Amino acid sequence: MKKYKIVFIGAGRLASNLAPALLNAGHSIVQVYSRTAGSASLLADKLHCGYTTSLTEVVDDADVYFFSVSDSALAELAKSLHSLIGEKLFVHTAGSMNIDVLPTGHRAVFYPMQTFVKDKRVDFKRIPCFIEASTDNDLSVVNSLANDISEKVYKLSSQQRQYLHLSAVFTCNFVNHFYAIGEKLLEKIGLPFDVLLPLIDESAEKVHTISPFEGQTGPAIRKDMNVINKQLQMLKEYPEWESLYQMITNDIINIHNK
Amino acid sequence: MKKYKIVFIGAGRLASNLAPALLNAGHSIVQVYSRTAGSASLLADKLHCGYTTSLTEVVDDADVYFFSVSDSALAELAKSLHSLIGEKLFVHTAGSMNIDVLPTGHRAVFYPMQTFVKDKRVDFKRIPCFIEASTDNDLSVVNSLANDISEKVYKLSSQQRQYLHLSAVFTCNFVNHFYAIGEKLLEKIGLPFDVLLPLIDESAEKVHTISPFEGQTGPAIRKDMNVINKQLQMLKEYPEWESLYQMITNDIINIHNK
Repeated sequence: MKKYKIVFIGAGRLASNLAPALLNAGHSIVQVYSRTAGSASLLADKLHCGYTTSLTEVVDDADVYFFSVSDSALAELAKSLHSLIGEKLFVHTAGSMNIDVLPTGHRAVFYPMQTFVKDKRVDFKRIPCFIEASTDNDLSVVNSLANDISEKVYKLSSQQRQYLHLSAVFTCNFVNHFYAIGEKLLEKIGLPFDVLLPLIDESAEKVHTISPFEGQTGPAIRKDMNVINKQLQMLKEYPEWESLYQMITNDIINIHNK
Repeated sequence: MKKYKIVFIGAGRLASNLAPALLNAGHSIVQVYSRTAGSASLLADKLHCGYTTSLTEVVDDADVYFFSVSDSALAELAKSLHSLIGEKLFVHTAGSMNIDVLPTGHRAVFYPMQTFVKDKRVDFKRIPCFIEASTDNDLSVVNSLANDISEKVYKLSSQQRQYLHLSAVFTCNFVNHFYAIGEKLLEKIGLPFDVLLPLIDESAEKVHTISPFEGQTGPAIRKDMNVINKQLQMLKEYPEWESLYQMITNDIINIHNK
């Protein structure tokens, strides 16, 4: 198994989870770059490597450069580093960004689809990793890196990955916002968010064995207009949530009547 | 610990989970009533008791009558049984229904907040049960039944329970619908729903330690307009989901800017 020398550009949540996983798999993380010294040094300490806050100090002899930065900063940073160190394998980790955002001839995508929290380590083995590369050789590099840390590696084009990322926005980001709406509604009656956890856990667990389409429950799929109208009435004081409730209820009814 | 003789009116998903839990806790389930013989006999077999599909055959010597039927059938059924067997403790299990829907002087609510699937047994100990009763004595009966099967028992008025149920619609039913939207979007690129499970699991697990408000991630909270506009564009072929995406994105941005 080939071991690679890797530089991390970015020290955010994704980098703080991915870099240690690659290190544990036997690869060398040789340097961390971040605009902010605090996060750069924090991650570099964990990886026992150097760090820098200046792109001009990024080493030019690594095999792979991982970019785990905000989508808006990615293109600019990659262009700047390319002009400094020349042709190297650049890899970005952004679900929603095209591979073409990278300026190098050798470029790849390595998207671990998970929601990362800095201080909560997740088990990378279970995280599906979606890869893409500009050449067969580059693909074999990211494929080998991905297989070193995850049991689920999929090759996916940039266009396909956009749909994947969109589905992640619905099932993770929007779902989390609905947890937050639940929390707000419970505040009204003085109950802690905790009382929702068994329901939240079971709702997630249920779709391991039953497709979410088949497993739909609640007033909408029962077309229980008494409950639906009463709940819409209760939401009058939250007009945005009233509209959301109405739209989602209609969507559930429509989809299940097709 | 007092043991009660219980009749179940209804043999649906909730009854099929609650009745066995009460039996395991040492209470006697003496009879099951359901309009449909199939579900009545199936549940009665599990409980080793008799069943009937005729209200006139419901025994009149039980201590507690549990109504686990559809919200729309509840009032009518309770009224009919009341006129047949007279004054008894009637208990309903519906999160969204007022206690007053029951016609008896002795009435109570026993709402186990969970999403139930018929053939998937859940651990009742972890399910929060919300109780309410018309008299102190009736309250002590449902309180003792609830504590026999669950570690989390809360006393809650009908009005409070409406907000609880509304929060459950958002965090369970609507969340599940978003899982279904994710499934549909993945079908477009030929990926199985399974690839979303680690993300779904982690999103649920995360809110055990971080409040959903604090733990929000994704393009909306980053106000990443590039991604947001691109994803809205992708949803043009699903106008309902495009509107949903826009509304939820706005709501996330607004709430976090308050």
